[in-house]
Formats: sequence, C-alpha cells, structure tokens
Amino acid sequence: MSDLSTPKRGRPGYDRAAILEIAVLAFNEHGYDATSMGVLASRLNLSKAAIYHHFSSKEELLQFALNHALGGLEELLLEPAATTGPAIDRLSHVLRGAVLMLADRLPYVTLLLRVRGNSPTERDALTRRKSFDRSVALLVSAARDAGSLRADIDPATVTRLLFGMVNSLTEWYQPTGPADAAHLADDVLALALNGLRTPSTSRE
Amino acid sequence: MSDLSTPKRGRPGYDRAAILEIAVLAFNEHGYDATSMGVLASRLNLSKAAIYHHFSSKEELLQFALNHALGGLEELLLEPAATTGPAIDRLSHVLRGAVLMLADRLPYVTLLLRVRGNSPTERDALTRRKSFDRSVALLVSAARDAGSLRADIDPATVTRLLFGMVNSLTEWYQPTGPADAAHLADDVLALALNGLRTPSTSRE
Repeated sequence: MSDLSTPKRGRPGYDRAAILEIAVLAFNEHGYDATSMGVLASRLNLSKAAIYHHFSSKEELLQFALNHALGGLEELLLEPAATTGPAIDRLSHVLRGAVLMLADRLPYVTLLLRVRGNSPTERDALTRRKSFDRSVALLVSAARDAGSLRADIDPATVTRLLFGMVNSLTEWYQPTGPADAAHLADDVLALALNGLRTPSTSRE
Repeated sequence: MSDLSTPKRGRPGYDRAAILEIAVLAFNEHGYDATSMGVLASRLNLSKAAIYHHFSSKEELLQFALNHALGGLEELLLEPAATTGPAIDRLSHVLRGAVLMLADRLPYVTLLLRVRGNSPTERDALTRRKSFDRSVALLVSAARDAGSLRADIDPATVTRLLFGMVNSLTEWYQPTGPADAAHLADDVLALALNGLRTPSTSRE
C-alpha cells in the first residue's frame, strides 16, 4: 500500500491521511456498515468524487485503516529489542510498544478491535491479528521456559489477559500526550510483570 | 423487577427466562437496534403477541438483560467477604467473583459492555456500571492505604486495567464449566496481584 502521507491533488486541506482519519472516526461512531460514502462526503464537506479521487472504495478506506493499526503492531515485533536479548525483555518491549502504539493510533485500533470478519478485508485483518497474538504467546512461552515467568498460567491465557488489559485502552484512555502514554505503559508493565501486591506482603 | 423464572402462561417450552436468553443472543449477534420484535418472534417461532405476553417491549427485554448482568456485579459487593476483613482480601473476593459471574452470565455481560447510552435504559445501565467501578476503585485505594498494594499506580487506572482484563473474557472465553471458570479466576488473581514474573527474578 502506498504511503498515507503521499500528497495528491484534491480539495485543499484534505490529503489522503486526513480523509482516512475522519473516515475512521465516522466508522467508530456509526459503525462501518452504517457509514456510507455519502455520509463521509457530507462530514468532509467534499463530493463523493473527491473522496474517490483518493480512495477507490469504502472497503479501501477500511483496508488502509486496519493496515495502519496492524502494521504498527507487526513492525513492533521486528524491532531489534523484540528480536534479541532475553525473552522477558523482548516481551516487555512488545507490551510497552503496544501500549504506546494504541495510545498513538487509538481510533485505528478501536476500529480493528470491532472487526468481526464480515468481508475478505475484515477476515484478512483477523488473520493478521491472530498471527500477532501467536507471536506474543510464543514470547510468553519463551520467557516461561527461561524461568522468568510463572509456569502455572497457560501462555495463551496470559496473552489474552495481557491484551485484554492493553486493548481496554480503546474504551477509556483519553490521550493527553506522549509523556502520559509512557507513564501508562509503565503502569501496564508493572501490573503485568510484578503485580499489584507490595513486595513486602506474602505471595501465593 | 419480578423474578425471571416466574412461570407464566405461554407457549410450552418458553418461559420468561428462555425468551430473554434467546433475545440476548440475538441482540449480541445483530445489535440491539437492528433486532426487531419480529426478528425475535421468528427466532423463537412465537407470535409477537406471545412475546408481549411476557415482556411489554423490546426495551423491557433490554432492561431485564442488563439488570441480570449488573445485579450480579452489585450483589457481589454486598457479600460478607466483600464487606469485612482486610481490603486486599475484599478486593480479591470481588475480582474472583466478577470473573465467575462473567463466565456464568457471559451473553448478558457482553450486551452490557456494548451499551453506549442511546436510551434512558442504557444510560441507567452506564450509571450503575460506573458506580460499580467506583466501588472497586475505593477497594483498591483502601488496600493501597493499608500498604497491601503498590502505591505508584493510580487506583482508577488499576481498576480500569483490571476490568479490561476481566471484561476481555467476553471476547475470547469459551465456557466449558464451573471448574474451568474457577481456574481462570485463579489465573486472573495471580496475574493481577503477584504478576507474571517469577518471585526469584528481580522486582522493580
């Protein structure tokens, strides 16, 4: 897919990225199926033709939007800190990165999490999401095998609970800036790895 | 509201509870707004009049359904183990109980979590959900003040992350029985309170 920020001709003030951003907000607000190209055009105060100049279809808008969310997660897994070093550190890096990515691309991840597989585009997104989850579960398994993580919880369950926590950000997080997101990532890691109990109190 | 299991006249095989159960599954599958009483009637193979014999409106079905989810959470807060003893134990009881309740009433909680405040019934449910969250946040604060929980994470953030984890069950949990749910509740408590890191490795 081509770069979102590629400038193209069109009404001044709306490039591809700006149109996509507003489309994603509309999809989240009204639902993808209920948002027609006509609705988008009136939100943007553009003609439908002006939108079709940038995106060939509503489905293509969805593709770009889901790709922006999934691409962010997939790139995370390829970063050096996610591929080298002890598994526990790689897992921490991915978990922290996922929180920061969610905070940064909140409407895109919100849309991704609502996808139910109603079209080839949605099914493709679900497959990529499952593949990401599997990669994280493998990191959890590796950290467990290395003795860094408790062995009494199934890695698939751990992965689901961790991402249940992280994905819930789409329900309640109000972005106020990168410093805030970094603080939140610290909180998620502290809770996930060390737990809420103070070290001085007894551990099961 | 009257007891769901109260037997009433009607087509044999469908009491109020059975109609509600099937309505909730339909609401979750198609969305509340998109599910008409006609759709419900054909799912149940009943006339609309037969449904109206049990429930005065679609809104009343929603009310009963949301009440079944919220009532379960609210009763949890009133149990002796949630009201007496150290705050950390009360919090643990509520967290464990919430997992068991979700596993037991999964479609009802799924419906509750999708409510966005589009009607007085939905707004009332949101208010009750917020009130429940506030009660849990107060338990987190109390446990923190007692020195049982780490002091570096804001209690409201802790509550959101904990319920992000718990509520994610509606996305992935496949009920197989009470033993399985109890095991899952153990996992959630272990992760939340003690963290994933093995005790032997360093803690921040």
